[in-house]
Amino acid sequence: MESVKPQMDLGNIRDLFADIVGTRHVMGGDEIEPRYKSDLMGFYESKPDLLVRPGSTAEVAAVLRVCYDRTVPVSPIGGNSGLVGGTSCIGGVSMALDRMAKVEQVDWANMTMLVEAGVLLQSVQEQAGAHGAIFPVDFGARGSATIGGMIATNAGGNKVLRYGMMRDSVLGIEAVLADGTIVSGLRSTLKDNAGYDWKHLLIGSEGTLGIVTRAMLRLRPAASGMRTALLAVRDVAAATHILRTLEAKTVGGLVSFELMWADYYEQAIDARRVAGAPPLRTGYPLYAIVEIEADADDGGEDRFLAMLGSFMEEGLSADIIIASSERERAAIWEIRENIGEAMAAKRPFLGFDISVGLAQLAAFVSDVRRRLCTAVPEAEAFFYGHAGDGNLHIIVTGYRDDEAMARSIESHVYAVVADFKGSISAEHGIGLHKMPFLGQTRSREEIQLMRRLKLVMDPSNILNPGKVLGEP
Amino acid sequence: MESVKPQMDLGNIRDLFADIVGTRHVMGGDEIEPRYKSDLMGFYESKPDLLVRPGSTAEVAAVLRVCYDRTVPVSPIGGNSGLVGGTSCIGGVSMALDRMAKVEQVDWANMTMLVEAGVLLQSVQEQAGAHGAIFPVDFGARGSATIGGMIATNAGGNKVLRYGMMRDSVLGIEAVLADGTIVSGLRSTLKDNAGYDWKHLLIGSEGTLGIVTRAMLRLRPAASGMRTALLAVRDVAAATHILRTLEAKTVGGLVSFELMWADYYEQAIDARRVAGAPPLRTGYPLYAIVEIEADADDGGEDRFLAMLGSFMEEGLSADIIIASSERERAAIWEIRENIGEAMAAKRPFLGFDISVGLAQLAAFVSDVRRRLCTAVPEAEAFFYGHAGDGNLHIIVTGYRDDEAMARSIESHVYAVVADFKGSISAEHGIGLHKMPFLGQTRSREEIQLMRRLKLVMDPSNILNPGKVLGEP
Repeated sequence: MESVKPQMDLGNIRDLFADIVGTRHVMGGDEIEPRYKSDLMGFYESKPDLLVRPGSTAEVAAVLRVCYDRTVPVSPIGGNSGLVGGTSCIGGVSMALDRMAKVEQVDWANMTMLVEAGVLLQSVQEQAGAHGAIFPVDFGARGSATIGGMIATNAGGNKVLRYGMMRDSVLGIEAVLADGTIVSGLRSTLKDNAGYDWKHLLIGSEGTLGIVTRAMLRLRPAASGMRTALLAVRDVAAATHILRTLEAKTVGGLVSFELMWADYYEQAIDARRVAGAPPLRTGYPLYAIVEIEADADDGGEDRFLAMLGSFMEEGLSADIIIASSERERAAIWEIRENIGEAMAAKRPFLGFDISVGLAQLAAFVSDVRRRLCTAVPEAEAFFYGHAGDGNLHIIVTGYRDDEAMARSIESHVYAVVADFKGSISAEHGIGLHKMPFLGQTRSREEIQLMRRLKLVMDPSNILNPGKVLGEP
Repeated sequence: MESVKPQMDLGNIRDLFADIVGTRHVMGGDEIEPRYKSDLMGFYESKPDLLVRPGSTAEVAAVLRVCYDRTVPVSPIGGNSGLVGGTSCIGGVSMALDRMAKVEQVDWANMTMLVEAGVLLQSVQEQAGAHGAIFPVDFGARGSATIGGMIATNAGGNKVLRYGMMRDSVLGIEAVLADGTIVSGLRSTLKDNAGYDWKHLLIGSEGTLGIVTRAMLRLRPAASGMRTALLAVRDVAAATHILRTLEAKTVGGLVSFELMWADYYEQAIDARRVAGAPPLRTGYPLYAIVEIEADADDGGEDRFLAMLGSFMEEGLSADIIIASSERERAAIWEIRENIGEAMAAKRPFLGFDISVGLAQLAAFVSDVRRRLCTAVPEAEAFFYGHAGDGNLHIIVTGYRDDEAMARSIESHVYAVVADFKGSISAEHGIGLHKMPFLGQTRSREEIQLMRRLKLVMDPSNILNPGKVLGEP
């Protein structure tokens, strides 16, 4: 990684920042608390010369004007729970949005919530839930991820099948551009075709085109009922058939369809924090978590049971357990949610977040296995993910722990992703980590277009430099 | 409107075009068929010096390179069924995509369809339907609108409540930029966070940032059952309550929630093409069309009836009719769909397509009425629309037929939209027609940002000039 450290003395800037945000919200070098200097998983260190914590959009804008005038890099920090080094600062200024964590307004009639960027996902979910609504973007790191970070990365998660990605739950944003201009589009209308929808360009741009300061979120009505099951599934073809049947039969109610391959499931059962027998025994080739939202009074329980029964009769599934309580539901989800983190603690460790067409999943998995087996026979690969969206996570461990080996494994996996015309990042973003591989699934023309957009939005490359597109 | 006619002789260009697309696909002046020189509603004339009809992406690119080198304006034409003059050419070249109308590939396992930009919406719907799938974007002009035009305008329609706008059903696009560069992102993955999602910038940009040539569409499973009802509703507050109840109880199944105010309903009944009694008598204050997708075997008919019954018991609705056949369903939808066109034949005529927060609908309608009543007492205004999305259409007739009066009425209506922080265009786009009003609901900073994006994507302003942002 090249250093982007500016060739300048930041001393004066500290005073300027202090005038804007107050002395105690500017820290330098060793004063900066550790939580700002590493991501939550400990993958990426951050070495900011200064940390600044603005308390309002106006303060963000004033800080950016200072940085713009002096060409000082600024890397924004949300919850620091990203997985690709998107908040890592390699010199210059880190800007933490954690003081901007207010829910400013909830409009129950319009089902909207106006929030500051630093608010936690969990707070948003809780405040929505207090009134019978939900904010439908959800994933394991809900207690640390912030709305701003989720917008910056277009976060996905467990409910994309029904509710879409983060961009589908954001009606409007307010952002500060590189030169300090505040652009505000905090509308609460569901439809707005008046001119270019610039919000969608910023969503998913990982802080490289602007810093999101506030957002108008779209809430949804909470369903009164939830049906959750864990299925032992014959193979990917059977899983696909089950998925399509559930999609058609539940008419919009299917929220989650997660797949876990046998060896992932085994590891996950071993790593569980709760005691007792696993929900389903190990040894089946494939496991699926299925979750359906429904009206509790719709009398559909029996139909759900019958549908699952038919999957067993047709030989698609060998065993099924249905959660009959919130505790049983949590036990099923624990297998899927907590394990990623547990396994990520292993060293060496490589995590992937790729997507391919659903119908290609089986061939994709076997190609990756074959390729790794030939090239790095000692590596172990575990497959799981939001397969209903064609989104797989892969964890690779057991290989010789050095950088070159890690890069080589990544090259192998991403080459297979490219063969299948998939994406090297389904939901985690590019950050620093995947930047060298962007060209694997994006064409030269696409990357050129991205560079042109970056150049016009941030001509001096001060916004989160090095991320997504690397150095110009 | 300023002319954007280039100060140059196009004679040589005609030969260059002929070399690219073949002589018979280039027409000049009087040779150009009338259907290319006016939109379907007859609102906007188009006066191209040349019409060119490329047959492939490569031909589109070659044509654009010629135009780029000579700074000749190019206005793309899809189905010409837009309502804001988005395809009107004021000198220069019109490019019709109607030769590019192939469905190239349908992937049933992945539920995707690869199409050329000129394919008709109806063809896409029919080919999807032939295999038990649907393409969920739908509206009255399905027989003339093309996929390319729908992407250019981010089309909405009758099913946005469940399936979203056009951008939510487009997985990837291929487009040609101003300089002739082909940018291809025809992926079929549902999730792709690898770099900036440039597709979303082009979707809804009305041909001013690039010309879409192909698209990967997302299909959905067809629901086996459909429940449609027409309700006489007490007022907007009652309608909102009904909407929220249906959203929560049907858990994703609610597809359409259309409102029609009393005087619109009366006009619509008068203009019907079928004979016989109207589905519900006139004279109620408000009418709602409700449509729910469901599994035909879910036994939910009785629950639907009970739910509607409860609306009557609670005094929210005075009368309800449920469609018990496809014919009855069509009779209900005819009131909503065909009448807009019938009324648009009236002269003078002004159509609006605005959105405001759902909870503000009642106040908005009465403010518009009051304002028009004071300023233009002879004008009649009719309100209807996709109210579940906060999207209202307004038809204004009966005023003195001159341009100044029309602009004055628009100013009044858009001023109220601005008061309510709504949008002057929910789904029809800006085109030429609404361009002077863009600043009513978009801030100076937003428009500046749009101009910067336009400038970097199309520095010589050759792509559909005059639309959306006007002249630079």
